[in-house]
Amino acid sequence: MKEENRALEMSHKALSDVAAEADNRGITIQRVGVKDVHLPIQVRRKTAGFVGALARIDLAVELPHHFRGTHMSRFVEVLFDFGQHPIGPGEIAEMLAEARKRLGARRADLRLAFKYFITKSAPATSAESALDYDCLFEGEQDESAFVFTLGVEVPVTLLCPCSKEISSRGAHSQRATVRVKVRTSPGEIIWIEDLVSLIEAQGSSGVYPVLKREDEKSVTEQAYDNPKFVEDILRDVVSALRGDSRITWFEVSCESMESIHNHSVFAYQQEERKP
Amino acid sequence: MKEENRALEMSHKALSDVAAEADNRGITIQRVGVKDVHLPIQVRRKTAGFVGALARIDLAVELPHHFRGTHMSRFVEVLFDFGQHPIGPGEIAEMLAEARKRLGARRADLRLAFKYFITKSAPATSAESALDYDCLFEGEQDESAFVFTLGVEVPVTLLCPCSKEISSRGAHSQRATVRVKVRTSPGEIIWIEDLVSLIEAQGSSGVYPVLKREDEKSVTEQAYDNPKFVEDILRDVVSALRGDSRITWFEVSCESMESIHNHSVFAYQQEERKP
Amino acid sequence: MKEENRALEMSHKALSDVAAEADNRGITIQRVGVKDVHLPIQVRRKTAGFVGALARIDLAVELPHHFRGTHMSRFVEVLFDFGQHPIGPGEIAEMLAEARKRLGARRADLRLAFKYFITKSAPATSAESALDYDCLFEGEQDESAFVFTLGVEVPVTLLCPCSKEISSRGAHSQRATVRVKVRTSPGEIIWIEDLVSLIEAQGSSGVYPVLKREDEKSVTEQAYDNPKFVEDILRDVVSALRGDSRITWFEVSCESMESIHNHSVFAYQQEERKP
Amino acid sequence: MKEENRALEMSHKALSDVAAEADNRGITIQRVGVKDVHLPIQVRRKTAGFVGALARIDLAVELPHHFRGTHMSRFVEVLFDFGQHPIGPGEIAEMLAEARKRLGARRADLRLAFKYFITKSAPATSAESALDYDCLFEGEQDESAFVFTLGVEVPVTLLCPCSKEISSRGAHSQRATVRVKVRTSPGEIIWIEDLVSLIEAQGSSGVYPVLKREDEKSVTEQAYDNPKFVEDILRDVVSALRGDSRITWFEVSCESMESIHNHSVFAYQQEERKP
Repeated sequence: MKEENRALEMSHKALSDVAAEADNRGITIQRVGVKDVHLPIQVRRKTAGFVGALARIDLAVELPHHFRGTHMSRFVEVLFDFGQHPIGPGEIAEMLAEARKRLGARRADLRLAFKYFITKSAPATSAESALDYDCLFEGEQDESAFVFTLGVEVPVTLLCPCSKEISSRGAHSQRATVRVKVRTSPGEIIWIEDLVSLIEAQGSSGVYPVLKREDEKSVTEQAYDNPKFVEDILRDVVSALRGDSRITWFEVSCESMESIHNHSVFAYQQEERKP
Repeated sequence: MKEENRALEMSHKALSDVAAEADNRGITIQRVGVKDVHLPIQVRRKTAGFVGALARIDLAVELPHHFRGTHMSRFVEVLFDFGQHPIGPGEIAEMLAEARKRLGARRADLRLAFKYFITKSAPATSAESALDYDCLFEGEQDESAFVFTLGVEVPVTLLCPCSKEISSRGAHSQRATVRVKVRTSPGEIIWIEDLVSLIEAQGSSGVYPVLKREDEKSVTEQAYDNPKFVEDILRDVVSALRGDSRITWFEVSCESMESIHNHSVFAYQQEERKP
Repeated sequence: MKEENRALEMSHKALSDVAAEADNRGITIQRVGVKDVHLPIQVRRKTAGFVGALARIDLAVELPHHFRGTHMSRFVEVLFDFGQHPIGPGEIAEMLAEARKRLGARRADLRLAFKYFITKSAPATSAESALDYDCLFEGEQDESAFVFTLGVEVPVTLLCPCSKEISSRGAHSQRATVRVKVRTSPGEIIWIEDLVSLIEAQGSSGVYPVLKREDEKSVTEQAYDNPKFVEDILRDVVSALRGDSRITWFEVSCESMESIHNHSVFAYQQEERKP
Repeated sequence: MKEENRALEMSHKALSDVAAEADNRGITIQRVGVKDVHLPIQVRRKTAGFVGALARIDLAVELPHHFRGTHMSRFVEVLFDFGQHPIGPGEIAEMLAEARKRLGARRADLRLAFKYFITKSAPATSAESALDYDCLFEGEQDESAFVFTLGVEVPVTLLCPCSKEISSRGAHSQRATVRVKVRTSPGEIIWIEDLVSLIEAQGSSGVYPVLKREDEKSVTEQAYDNPKFVEDILRDVVSALRGDSRITWFEVSCESMESIHNHSVFAYQQEERKP
């Protein structure tokens, strides 16, 4: 169509909806949506109330084979509407229901990644400071089911058992990151705070924003007394997760940024509880 | 053990192997290994010969429940041994066999990510230049099976059909990335070059390192004549992959870095061919 | 010292302060401190009040040649103390004064990077949504001077003038990022909102989180009517900054993620106003 | 101009060169060019010969006030022409001269970032493996001068002196990255291999891709016997650089990824030798 004619025609009719056009390729698209939308949100705390956070969000729906495209602006509208209210698993379900409704979709999924701060007391002086944990809320919903996944990343200190055993003095240690995702039985909620505590207890030592000298002595000695391979911490986290009857599925990885290498070592496990 | 005594004892015996100690937690670890090892490699080309590349590598094995840890240095040794030879699917299988053997493991998996350069001719002037594509070789092997996955990321231009249709002039365009992974029937090989060509043909236009003015006119007009949503390019890539009878499984995503938003839009599909 | 003896000795005396030991290498260190501390902060808005944000922070001081080390925990304590209060240029000066005092340092510098959201109205429908801008507060202070730098990153649409001119139809466009840092005369304040507006006006078009079809038509046509190279937008931003008499120094870069290439093009300028 | 008429007109004349149009804003642009071009290169080794590497490249020129734009395709052509030959400081000067010539520019600058591998022998077993170092070649040239800067990033182990001193057993260690840039007197060359060796010697211990148990014992004990703050390693690197009379300017930073915190600590120094 010539630009000139098109301009004329434009003034006489409503804007056509190209995305709503029929499609004859016969392909239902599993997921289509928006990615890396940044939005301030409110996250429910375990203790009463909620706290502000900054989320990076992906939201997608299934697109039936007979539509050419989806309506991308509606995804962002759904996100903005919910950005004002405290968000927990229940609200994730509501957001997905709203996205499915506004987009006429059978299925939708959502991923919110955000930093969450938890106040920690230093081990000797009890000095308080807040540590940042990378967290995830993931939800997936269709006509019959809603699956919610909670994810946390917990930094810990790992001290190498081999290095300790074979060396006449000292033992190399490093920061490691334990990433855990869990799903629970319907009606059960696991709070970020509790999942973080469960994981942190499995490191050679925890990490802290503020450590005075007495605290540094304490974490150094604790790590030295408690050497762990990535294999050890993975197994200890797996054992703890297996022991929580609310959990129906989990995924665990531990990555250790080795202080004696320029690469990482890691361990990984995914399990589903047999009903 | 006191440091002093330990030092003495050290001088009298071989270094103990802590990783080889027995473990009684009863947990077989699904994957344990090294991550983000950087290594120069040689990649087989479709045309005769091979080309140097820089790989970022993860290598992991299954760890039986009765061992406390694996031997991380052996993973890196396996990688170094194979860094000298041209690598294709066959060599991935050999590396996995070697890793399983040296580590006494039932199962192993490997991931090599590297940039691969393909010479392209500009559409009007035929000026030649080499474009970089992010590629992946992934392999997984146990006693009974070897699965190889090829991955490529292809940058393309997408021009928005809705923007073209509703606007009196112009239409917004942007760079998009199409990520594809494929698996094939035993004995079948798909070359990076061929998979890239299949994908590139589905964009509104391809992208090029060097475009002279005549070329820029050509790609601009080609994109304007060939508007596509992420949904369109995803379906067109899916159709093309379904049409290749060698392919038994694929995963496709297309992410478009929208020029009118500060976020991306995307579409995703994964399919397995029913035998 | 043997571990055994050291443990004994420990119980008899206070923990020694190794960082405070004398140093005889004769080297004053220009900057020493903490990096990538994450902390929730409150940012002053142009309109009354403030808004929560998530900051990534570096804080450093000069270390005199006669001290072996600084006291890293105090840096984090200074940051936590100020995390509770609204932060603007004045508070940056206070934080630096506090850091210098607690660390006995002649000089200190601070860098806070955070996302800041500004509500935008879509050009045709006036639909409101909030766009995220990466911002920076940087401060540097010694006995005699305090220099504050404000930084913003503004995403815009750029449409290529060459592509438009030489093509029979269409013109390629892409998202570009304009990064600006400014310093002002003492007593002058430039708000994030105003600096963003100044920059955004220089793009072929602005970008928006939510655009309905009428809006997409509007931004498409605006961009097509307003083609700009990175050189053009750089010069237009430089002209606008030169025209603001409060500004004494600025740095500008524009990076365009070309939709027809797999690389970016960019332009850069830094200027100081002659007094 | 209407699309229809423009198409007609196009067929009658050569494509116009919009970038070469006159500009009347009176602003000479300091740097304009391409960014993040990926290209295989050949890097000269200290020992005879050269080695393949993968470079990420920025190339920019000054743009006089009377031209509207530069010609971006020529930057990439210059890079491709030189991609075939071994590159060292001399070739950087040639590339800049060529860029200035083809683009009619008074000044040009270039930045090549690449990984460079150096074979290391493990300290006890002498097992050989190649470690990756992030390196930089930077050059800047105008009518009268050429300045070349070599940059290297060296991973090392740091063991905390305070933690060792105050703890009854053990001491926390972590991986740290020392980043150094140097410039030399005309005619003087410093090889990557030599600069890496100078830096690596200042860590509590070096890091290695492959360490057998005897080696792990060795590096653990070496680090424990050689505790260093970031301040210590910074001063030791500064001392070593001051001691090399070929060096006329340097910049050093050391960032330590603390194993007991979720943030880094760092030290920074920049010095110019007074002639």
